[in-house]
Amino acid sequence: MEQIKIVIAGPRGRMGKEALELIHNTEHFTLVGAVDRVNGGKLISDIEGLPPLEAPIFEDIEACFQEVQPDVLLDLTTPEIGRRHTRIALDYGIRPVVGTTGFTAQDLDELQGLAQQKQLGAIIAPNFAIGAVLMMKFSQMAAKYFQDVEIIELHHNQKLDAPSGTGIKTAEMIAEVREQKKQGHPDEKEHIIGARGADFEGIRLHSVRLPGLIAHQEVLFGGDGQTLTIRHDSYNRASFMSGVKLAIDTVMKIDLLVYGLENIME
Amino acid sequence: MEQIKIVIAGPRGRMGKEALELIHNTEHFTLVGAVDRVNGGKLISDIEGLPPLEAPIFEDIEACFQEVQPDVLLDLTTPEIGRRHTRIALDYGIRPVVGTTGFTAQDLDELQGLAQQKQLGAIIAPNFAIGAVLMMKFSQMAAKYFQDVEIIELHHNQKLDAPSGTGIKTAEMIAEVREQKKQGHPDEKEHIIGARGADFEGIRLHSVRLPGLIAHQEVLFGGDGQTLTIRHDSYNRASFMSGVKLAIDTVMKIDLLVYGLENIME
Amino acid sequence: MEQIKIVIAGPRGRMGKEALELIHNTEHFTLVGAVDRVNGGKLISDIEGLPPLEAPIFEDIEACFQEVQPDVLLDLTTPEIGRRHTRIALDYGIRPVVGTTGFTAQDLDELQGLAQQKQLGAIIAPNFAIGAVLMMKFSQMAAKYFQDVEIIELHHNQKLDAPSGTGIKTAEMIAEVREQKKQGHPDEKEHIIGARGADFEGIRLHSVRLPGLIAHQEVLFGGDGQTLTIRHDSYNRASFMSGVKLAIDTVMKIDLLVYGLENIME
Amino acid sequence: MEQIKIVIAGPRGRMGKEALELIHNTEHFTLVGAVDRVNGGKLISDIEGLPPLEAPIFEDIEACFQEVQPDVLLDLTTPEIGRRHTRIALDYGIRPVVGTTGFTAQDLDELQGLAQQKQLGAIIAPNFAIGAVLMMKFSQMAAKYFQDVEIIELHHNQKLDAPSGTGIKTAEMIAEVREQKKQGHPDEKEHIIGARGADFEGIRLHSVRLPGLIAHQEVLFGGDGQTLTIRHDSYNRASFMSGVKLAIDTVMKIDLLVYGLENIME
Repeated sequence: MEQIKIVIAGPRGRMGKEALELIHNTEHFTLVGAVDRVNGGKLISDIEGLPPLEAPIFEDIEACFQEVQPDVLLDLTTPEIGRRHTRIALDYGIRPVVGTTGFTAQDLDELQGLAQQKQLGAIIAPNFAIGAVLMMKFSQMAAKYFQDVEIIELHHNQKLDAPSGTGIKTAEMIAEVREQKKQGHPDEKEHIIGARGADFEGIRLHSVRLPGLIAHQEVLFGGDGQTLTIRHDSYNRASFMSGVKLAIDTVMKIDLLVYGLENIME
Repeated sequence: MEQIKIVIAGPRGRMGKEALELIHNTEHFTLVGAVDRVNGGKLISDIEGLPPLEAPIFEDIEACFQEVQPDVLLDLTTPEIGRRHTRIALDYGIRPVVGTTGFTAQDLDELQGLAQQKQLGAIIAPNFAIGAVLMMKFSQMAAKYFQDVEIIELHHNQKLDAPSGTGIKTAEMIAEVREQKKQGHPDEKEHIIGARGADFEGIRLHSVRLPGLIAHQEVLFGGDGQTLTIRHDSYNRASFMSGVKLAIDTVMKIDLLVYGLENIME
Repeated sequence: MEQIKIVIAGPRGRMGKEALELIHNTEHFTLVGAVDRVNGGKLISDIEGLPPLEAPIFEDIEACFQEVQPDVLLDLTTPEIGRRHTRIALDYGIRPVVGTTGFTAQDLDELQGLAQQKQLGAIIAPNFAIGAVLMMKFSQMAAKYFQDVEIIELHHNQKLDAPSGTGIKTAEMIAEVREQKKQGHPDEKEHIIGARGADFEGIRLHSVRLPGLIAHQEVLFGGDGQTLTIRHDSYNRASFMSGVKLAIDTVMKIDLLVYGLENIME
Repeated sequence: MEQIKIVIAGPRGRMGKEALELIHNTEHFTLVGAVDRVNGGKLISDIEGLPPLEAPIFEDIEACFQEVQPDVLLDLTTPEIGRRHTRIALDYGIRPVVGTTGFTAQDLDELQGLAQQKQLGAIIAPNFAIGAVLMMKFSQMAAKYFQDVEIIELHHNQKLDAPSGTGIKTAEMIAEVREQKKQGHPDEKEHIIGARGADFEGIRLHSVRLPGLIAHQEVLFGGDGQTLTIRHDSYNRASFMSGVKLAIDTVMKIDLLVYGLENIME
């Protein structure tokens, strides 16, 4: 397999560390450089807690690109920095794989234009967990055949937001294809407020928060005499890495920008 | 095994029909009579849709008791009628097994006095599904060791009440033994109202309603690095019958009134 | 919506009865006749236990087709009769929807030829439960991204076969796309024979048989730090009817033979 | 709450490290010493990766007991060392809490004699995960009412043994109280060997092994029209610590040896 030369931005974050392990363990991936706010001039292998990769660290992304000429930029920074990095990468003819959220429709349009003009692949994915992406994709497909659906998402009790981002994203994807419908009995009565969960365009979402739990979601569809359940359990951050790998391999083969991992999965 | 002579009240209801099948199929149970608003003078076997049991039907319960002298009255009527029947049975020295809800604490006190005075067993059970009763019992036991608990109950979308009676009863039983606690993160935020479910003394209840579902409940306990889940699935009314059988067998061996099947299960 | 004129073959079987209810309750479906071994000359509404549909029953399928000129034949008979009926229907220019198994590859080739020559839609489906079909379809899709998969199928304890037909069919569909792989630890040891389940090309299948259960299947995929689970619960025969409806609606819009409901679902 | 003075044996093992964190974080626990093969004369806080507890390390357990006079010995070593430590602790009037397996019935008898003679509490527990212990306890209780049961245990694919130790222990506990019974249909047929799982006195066990999974077990009971499921999910080693805490608190209040955490839980 042909080697893919990668620069990583954000090597010391939690995702970054996992990604370095992934690159270290993937035969056809080569780390040729890293972009970091600090540590310019050192090697990745100089930093405690990072794998023994002899790639140089740069504080300036353009200097990095000029020096090491990568195929792919893997960006695991913040939304703001990610947007800037994505533009620069495309300018330099480098294919970006970006794991941050917060891109607006306008950002995406502009970057899409740039990618097409340069005929370069680019992948921006708010969620790299392949299992979670498949859960959402399958839920959208099932919603064409089952109008009645409820979502139960379960997380550790340190989580502040309810419903979770993935829960809401799943409901949005279902709502796109599902004929709108108020679910449950028309005369149903909540004896204690909140029993029937959150209402998102008629879809009900329930957020469970318990110590011990990590990140789980169940999408339940009901029809005459049957139910269909799609569940994803995420046990740790390693769950993102097969999605990162898929994105890096795929970005080399496409010549436009794709938003969302689901759109590169058949 | 010694035969137990049974009179049934409410033979044509949905529970009644199942109970007649149970008696028909249990070797040491004999149906000696039935009490019904109508059909006095006929036999059970005369009524379409009922099993071929040759037991006479009475419209007056006292006439029935005098004539057939049963060991046990199995009452599957309404709360109001059930209360009256229970008193009369104890007066006649007959052990009642009653499958109705709606008895007040005062009713139970009075009937307990009567049962003890007569040294007769009596069992009043709002729920005869052994699996559901065990689920509640185990949940109460687990709550001593896990303070964090959420209840998800799932029913067909013809159900009007949310949360379900069993859901609330489970929460009550847990609340009796659990040190009170507000669950979830103190700063958690519901971005859509109802996401975190109904709050019953700090315990969260979630009601799922979908076509296809029958009657299901899951009690989830969370602690450091682990979760414990107790789930009951009820697929049809036959699920009540092993509890009715247990109650009839047990009522012959006790000499006081017991409320709730959980109190005759070890 | 335009009316679809339907002839049913096998109206008194368990599937047949459900299908009659479906036709009765679907506004744009009209039952114009039925084919049965007996009862020729009567109406469906004459037969006890069937819905009040005034459609005539024929013992000879060709007489039926000549007389009532349906759009669709819904065949819910046996494999042998089904094969014959399908050929005759296509000969008469009628679109068959067939719910029987047992067609050989040669049968299908021949019928496909006939359908294309006549430019007629035809659908042969071994399984009409939309939820089960989606479970299999999603499992096949997920297997491209998760090589490790185990299947747990759970049925009532009156079932003779283990694994179930759906379990084996799911494994076959997964094996078509999955890179072959022996799962589990290479040195794993079964201390009690059978613990690791049945081995189908490296995929493990586990058959649970318990009273109370109906028909359930769970397909579990595992990858780094995550699992994806797809589960179907079938509670009663009504679960087949939305698939029958989909097939009848679809057969009017296509002009070739399709085998398997999954191939008419997007 | 009165302080409990604890000596730990095996402080550098995986369980040992978690236990040091537990002691560090529990107000009424004081670590007064540690027993280790090496590091004699150092403090726990001198060892990299251990919490900042100023307790001295001893290589000789008797020297340790004489010097620091603990209330409790928490032993997390190997079976062989654990046996020896338990005897010495009882001799010195110290209450042992032992987290190792491999004690024979004869060992337990002898240690029980010693504990009673000294009127000292002692707890030996092969499993400290409270959730797992409750799962087994509840399963044993449920087996009195449901004769039909199957066990599904699910672990990561690095596990060598199938079924798991907890799976077999659960089956043993159920077999103690359950009327023996061959489950499934008498004429059931395994079309692929192993489909029906491992047979332990008529109880079926199924072992699922997938990457991503950690340690999970489901016990399914089936009866007329219903199922009852008890499930434990263990996500990390912290799951053992609430059991260790319970054992330390309880060992101070009893005056005999108890084997198995289930026997100190109501």
